[in-house]
Amino acid sequence: MGISENETAQVLVHALPYIQQYNNKTIVVKYGGNAMVSGELKDAVMTDLVLLSLVGIRVVLVHGGGPEITDMLKKVGKESRFVGGLRYTDRETMDIVQMVLGGKVNKDLVLSLQHKGGRALGLCGLDGGMIEAERMFADGTDLGQVGQVTNVDVTPINDALEHGYIPVVATMGAGRDGKVYNINADTAAARIAAALGAEKLILLTDIRGLLRDKNDENTLIPVVNVSEVPNLIRQGIISGGMIPKIDCCVEAVRRGVNRAHIIDGRRPHSILVEMFSDGGIGTMFL
Amino acid sequence: MGISENETAQVLVHALPYIQQYNNKTIVVKYGGNAMVSGELKDAVMTDLVLLSLVGIRVVLVHGGGPEITDMLKKVGKESRFVGGLRYTDRETMDIVQMVLGGKVNKDLVLSLQHKGGRALGLCGLDGGMIEAERMFADGTDLGQVGQVTNVDVTPINDALEHGYIPVVATMGAGRDGKVYNINADTAAARIAAALGAEKLILLTDIRGLLRDKNDENTLIPVVNVSEVPNLIRQGIISGGMIPKIDCCVEAVRRGVNRAHIIDGRRPHSILVEMFSDGGIGTMFL
Amino acid sequence: MGISENETAQVLVHALPYIQQYNNKTIVVKYGGNAMVSGELKDAVMTDLVLLSLVGIRVVLVHGGGPEITDMLKKVGKESRFVGGLRYTDRETMDIVQMVLGGKVNKDLVLSLQHKGGRALGLCGLDGGMIEAERMFADGTDLGQVGQVTNVDVTPINDALEHGYIPVVATMGAGRDGKVYNINADTAAARIAAALGAEKLILLTDIRGLLRDKNDENTLIPVVNVSEVPNLIRQGIISGGMIPKIDCCVEAVRRGVNRAHIIDGRRPHSILVEMFSDGGIGTMFL
Amino acid sequence: MGISENETAQVLVHALPYIQQYNNKTIVVKYGGNAMVSGELKDAVMTDLVLLSLVGIRVVLVHGGGPEITDMLKKVGKESRFVGGLRYTDRETMDIVQMVLGGKVNKDLVLSLQHKGGRALGLCGLDGGMIEAERMFADGTDLGQVGQVTNVDVTPINDALEHGYIPVVATMGAGRDGKVYNINADTAAARIAAALGAEKLILLTDIRGLLRDKNDENTLIPVVNVSEVPNLIRQGIISGGMIPKIDCCVEAVRRGVNRAHIIDGRRPHSILVEMFSDGGIGTMFL
Amino acid sequence: MGISENETAQVLVHALPYIQQYNNKTIVVKYGGNAMVSGELKDAVMTDLVLLSLVGIRVVLVHGGGPEITDMLKKVGKESRFVGGLRYTDRETMDIVQMVLGGKVNKDLVLSLQHKGGRALGLCGLDGGMIEAERMFADGTDLGQVGQVTNVDVTPINDALEHGYIPVVATMGAGRDGKVYNINADTAAARIAAALGAEKLILLTDIRGLLRDKNDENTLIPVVNVSEVPNLIRQGIISGGMIPKIDCCVEAVRRGVNRAHIIDGRRPHSILVEMFSDGGIGTMFL
Amino acid sequence: MGISENETAQVLVHALPYIQQYNNKTIVVKYGGNAMVSGELKDAVMTDLVLLSLVGIRVVLVHGGGPEITDMLKKVGKESRFVGGLRYTDRETMDIVQMVLGGKVNKDLVLSLQHKGGRALGLCGLDGGMIEAERMFADGTDLGQVGQVTNVDVTPINDALEHGYIPVVATMGAGRDGKVYNINADTAAARIAAALGAEKLILLTDIRGLLRDKNDENTLIPVVNVSEVPNLIRQGIISGGMIPKIDCCVEAVRRGVNRAHIIDGRRPHSILVEMFSDGGIGTMFL
Repeated sequence: MGISENETAQVLVHALPYIQQYNNKTIVVKYGGNAMVSGELKDAVMTDLVLLSLVGIRVVLVHGGGPEITDMLKKVGKESRFVGGLRYTDRETMDIVQMVLGGKVNKDLVLSLQHKGGRALGLCGLDGGMIEAERMFADGTDLGQVGQVTNVDVTPINDALEHGYIPVVATMGAGRDGKVYNINADTAAARIAAALGAEKLILLTDIRGLLRDKNDENTLIPVVNVSEVPNLIRQGIISGGMIPKIDCCVEAVRRGVNRAHIIDGRRPHSILVEMFSDGGIGTMFL
Repeated sequence: MGISENETAQVLVHALPYIQQYNNKTIVVKYGGNAMVSGELKDAVMTDLVLLSLVGIRVVLVHGGGPEITDMLKKVGKESRFVGGLRYTDRETMDIVQMVLGGKVNKDLVLSLQHKGGRALGLCGLDGGMIEAERMFADGTDLGQVGQVTNVDVTPINDALEHGYIPVVATMGAGRDGKVYNINADTAAARIAAALGAEKLILLTDIRGLLRDKNDENTLIPVVNVSEVPNLIRQGIISGGMIPKIDCCVEAVRRGVNRAHIIDGRRPHSILVEMFSDGGIGTMFL
Repeated sequence: MGISENETAQVLVHALPYIQQYNNKTIVVKYGGNAMVSGELKDAVMTDLVLLSLVGIRVVLVHGGGPEITDMLKKVGKESRFVGGLRYTDRETMDIVQMVLGGKVNKDLVLSLQHKGGRALGLCGLDGGMIEAERMFADGTDLGQVGQVTNVDVTPINDALEHGYIPVVATMGAGRDGKVYNINADTAAARIAAALGAEKLILLTDIRGLLRDKNDENTLIPVVNVSEVPNLIRQGIISGGMIPKIDCCVEAVRRGVNRAHIIDGRRPHSILVEMFSDGGIGTMFL
Repeated sequence: MGISENETAQVLVHALPYIQQYNNKTIVVKYGGNAMVSGELKDAVMTDLVLLSLVGIRVVLVHGGGPEITDMLKKVGKESRFVGGLRYTDRETMDIVQMVLGGKVNKDLVLSLQHKGGRALGLCGLDGGMIEAERMFADGTDLGQVGQVTNVDVTPINDALEHGYIPVVATMGAGRDGKVYNINADTAAARIAAALGAEKLILLTDIRGLLRDKNDENTLIPVVNVSEVPNLIRQGIISGGMIPKIDCCVEAVRRGVNRAHIIDGRRPHSILVEMFSDGGIGTMFL
Repeated sequence: MGISENETAQVLVHALPYIQQYNNKTIVVKYGGNAMVSGELKDAVMTDLVLLSLVGIRVVLVHGGGPEITDMLKKVGKESRFVGGLRYTDRETMDIVQMVLGGKVNKDLVLSLQHKGGRALGLCGLDGGMIEAERMFADGTDLGQVGQVTNVDVTPINDALEHGYIPVVATMGAGRDGKVYNINADTAAARIAAALGAEKLILLTDIRGLLRDKNDENTLIPVVNVSEVPNLIRQGIISGGMIPKIDCCVEAVRRGVNRAHIIDGRRPHSILVEMFSDGGIGTMFL
Repeated sequence: MGISENETAQVLVHALPYIQQYNNKTIVVKYGGNAMVSGELKDAVMTDLVLLSLVGIRVVLVHGGGPEITDMLKKVGKESRFVGGLRYTDRETMDIVQMVLGGKVNKDLVLSLQHKGGRALGLCGLDGGMIEAERMFADGTDLGQVGQVTNVDVTPINDALEHGYIPVVATMGAGRDGKVYNINADTAAARIAAALGAEKLILLTDIRGLLRDKNDENTLIPVVNVSEVPNLIRQGIISGGMIPKIDCCVEAVRRGVNRAHIIDGRRPHSILVEMFSDGGIGTMFL
């Protein structure tokens, strides 16, 4: 590293007020998609989380498993049935989802955090009845075992935090019908952050944040008040795939999370940059 | 149920001394194979465990995942390579093992216990560095990511027990090389039972116990002192697939577990029968 | 016992939902009169209480001492003076009451519970100022040291429960005048149950419950809403010696106890039958 | 009171080093016999104990019940059978003993302490299995339900002290045969003091202490090293009814109690005088 | 001492109800001025505080340092500048104040309490941000680093009490400007007593209390209701240097302290006399 | 600051293993002399300590007060008497020492730490009897109230650490004669570090460390095993004023402190550089 010892000291001193600010606060990080694909980026994210936990921040990692699920479905030759353009999650698909989320992605994240010197504990929405769900109908269409959250009980997460672990949460939920439901990880992260009374929800995405002109990264909107969101949608500035992510931010803030962030997971150590610099990066919702 | 209320009372009274005996003691149950395949038997096992936990016993469930792993390997068209007659666990196979154990079997068991009214928490050997492993060589043959246990730290299990959960443990381990290793579930259960200072280790199998004449179920040996085991092997009474199971029992007892049991998981509620009757069932090692 | 191991398992499984339902709840049992006279029945009651405490129920035993007090008064040749048909409790009579309740009945119950493997602690209403009382006048008639409860402080009972004991409570109370007062055990049990926020108050009596026709045991009324009681009194269905017992049930329910029961203490293990069967026995007030 | 405010201050200041010395230490007081008969003396003893407990001393009161037992036996017309000159304790006699000790004396002491503003909890040797006993044979003579202590478990006493109560202990014990045994209160007090690691055992008696010449109160021996006791017995200075009392002191000291005292309970506030003056009173064993 | 052992006992018994009354209550003593000058009186005060702490009272000592500050200013030849007749506290003067209060008086008091067998811990208003202050302007006149209290956080005092120390508090405060401010010790004591929810605030002064005729000590007013104070000022009974002291008592009572006292620190053990006699001494505000 | 956000992230990541290594460990920093004189350097030291405490290190600051004491003695015109070339500490000098250490330096450090966002608590060796001392004779010469440590009880420091404070310790001690003694701060720091079982003792000095040639800063000896020290003294490499400092390091290590360091307090953030870089700075003793 080309940074001298003096600069090291300077940087740490510079980080001091941020460390003070977040000391003993809860930060929920939602992680998934492409940021999770690159080994190097994943390494950087794991390092960031271990660091946050060491400086006294209560860190919770919520993850999805997008590309790995698709890969696995392909491997087992499972053809997806589509209903009204949406993928139907039958029993067999749900099994694959559960296996990839709970058995592959979750365990790999636990292993990585442990390897970086953190203490991690893998959880899923079934543990201790954490996420209660029911069948979701998108515009009246039955999508199979796709669920919406009916209740969140963060006791198992708090138990893990209390014992000094970084909880790593896979987001399936249990229905009263005894079935497992696939829950959107962004939504789950927002609900968990709210139930934990988190200071921040950070969505690690593969975009820079909310752009006024989506083709020009220089038009990043750094701060959005959640009351402005409907207007931004009307103006078309928030559109397409952005809408559900931003809805999660809005819901988290509405339910009491202090700040929600959409930041660029493709940039190494983007979490540290967001938390330990004045400007922050990406878009902050408050 | 054809049992009268008076009989109910009588049975409960009869169970009293057993409940007293095991109150606040730790019981590790190893569950896997065929007993896990039948839905009805699985239901009965789950009920038994929830009941044990309610009468004040600290219950830990350790599981393997045999048949489901084979099914999944078949589904993804993974052909197994054999070395000296033993299956080689390459990276891709290990991924499947990890997914089935940690994502399918473990989560299904958590869901079932929760559904029966228990409070369950899914754990795996990676959580909090619980199982440390290294590559195992069988007679000098490299079997890939098959590991032997080098260290067991039951802190995450004790944390879960302390918070009133039934910990459900999938038995992979982490190597110092950052790789995940597949660990034999019987062996892991024995080591975990020893590290917990358990009162009992119960292996739920698909045999009646140790038979003097393996073709005659009436020749069951109810009690074996671990010092007799070498002799029983020499006499051929313990042989074949029985040897590793009985070795686990011996190791558990040698490391301080009070009693180890091989019982018949095909019989409904065999755990309750073992624990709440005078004779017990199966073979007990002490 | 003529019940097979399989039936044992079945019964335990059948009891599971009841155990879950009462787990960590408080049950106050009032015990006295004839059910206490027969050694065999007493044995069965003790066994029931130890069993309840082992399956995670907080059990409190409140007792009176009727027949043994009469015997003792006879032994010391104490002639009772009657005022308006009611026995006057003079200082000497109160001494006998206190001795029999606190020294004989209470200690015998503690010894029996300990002998059955329970952990019992004998308390009386004087300990830690538990029951505060004042002289009671029945229709203006002074009955001597017969008291009515003016305050109940269940701290000593909760302290004992917290340390894992079954508290056994003799129901005398202390007056501000420094005198000891004899308190009706049913009334005290109702007040204690209310102060503990108990789930259930069970009065063990020597009748089957409330009968529509007191000469026909087949006319048992299994459930009574406390609001119906005045009407039942008017109809003469509740009458005579039943009235005070049922008043206690009503008071307990009115003060927040979930259910109050009058059950037949002459039937062995009637507590277990009440708590671990669908129908229950006797009459339940809610 | 004829003592001025200034003298009050002076006395309190004078008491300071004694209060410091005994702060948080355990003092076991054995109380019985004549000191208990006089209402005024009893009042003074109760006041002393409440005061000790308020200045941070862990006070335990162990009591016998001599004269009241004799009275009661007389009242019920129970004739005592003598064996080799010793009173035989048959079942009926034991019942009376139990009632008087556990129901009369114990409860009266609790009431008095509460009345003086203390927080008292009545216990007996049966509670929580505190005193385990077996039949005692005096020189081969069976005395019925007279027991010797085989084990002392002071958990119930410590539980009570922890919750801020003054435990008041009646000294019967439970045999493995399910019978209650009468235990000598001095002996029980010595064993309890030892098991509690008490700083002091104080026997409140009706003599001034050990006198060199038993007819001359001016010949009080203020301090005796337990090793001198056999010699004092040989010299006849310790003789008759003194022997068992002094044996208790010796046993207490031998089992680790720091100091044992025989003091004169007929003198008002003798406990305070012993503990808060330089000379102390009575005879101290070390 | 000319007081006999019997009188010792009598006095202690007499003190019992007072000890009961103040048990576990918080008493704040403000100490300063002449009572602090005489070594003998100081000794008596220290003894009183240690005694109070041993009988279960939570004692907090707040001190000023008047004469010693003046001495030190003289020693360093610091000439005081006066503004409108009031001493201006420049930086150099404040340094002397801080040194004398925090380094001399505070430490001497800690040493004395320790020497008397107490456990003392020296604190000042800067510790843990206990006293927050801002520049005070007396009638618009800037007095330099003389501060008024803007906030009191008694956490460090409670932490010390919880660990069994007698906290000894020097009353400087920290401004948001990073400067230290000199805070009037009476005022600080009143605010600290209020924040602690103290039972009593005792100001140890060099007068007998509030006199109706200031030249006649026999005209002491023993009890004043704070609502009468304005009237007493109007009548001239409260005047001159008394006004600020009585204002402190009024403020303490208004903010929830149960009783505030002005007592004569020149009388030995005046604190004990106030607390352990019926009449008390000095003037009590309620 | 000329360091980019990316570099910030890089530096934090680089610091991670050091943070992990010292997490929950105790570090004692001895601070005094010239490093304390410059306001800017002092600021940097305070920042470093607050930062260490926030990343989970238990930080204890021990300080002397050299130059400020000399200044104050001059101000009050106190002429020092010398005995055998050493300054005699008479009562008046000790008073000045106590005031400056306990009232000026200690409080200024507390204020600075609080101002930087830390939670600090000022302590001195008298609090809770922390440092017990006796008169020291240097080669038989009486130096007045100069003391040597006879006992260290770090309870007050541990109490403060437990409540999350940075304890700031002024090093006077109490003699059994009731006098205060001046204790060398380096020695006290070594003894405190040992009693706390500290991981590190850091002496902040005004030299670079131990130099092989004291005129050439390039001859720094980075690591010294304490067993080599006698030899280095014999060689003249350790000499003069270095000897007592290095003796402290040796004593700390001998008494169980893992590492002792002499580092250059004139360099900004030298503590951070020592702790968060591979090479460290100054000389380390082990």
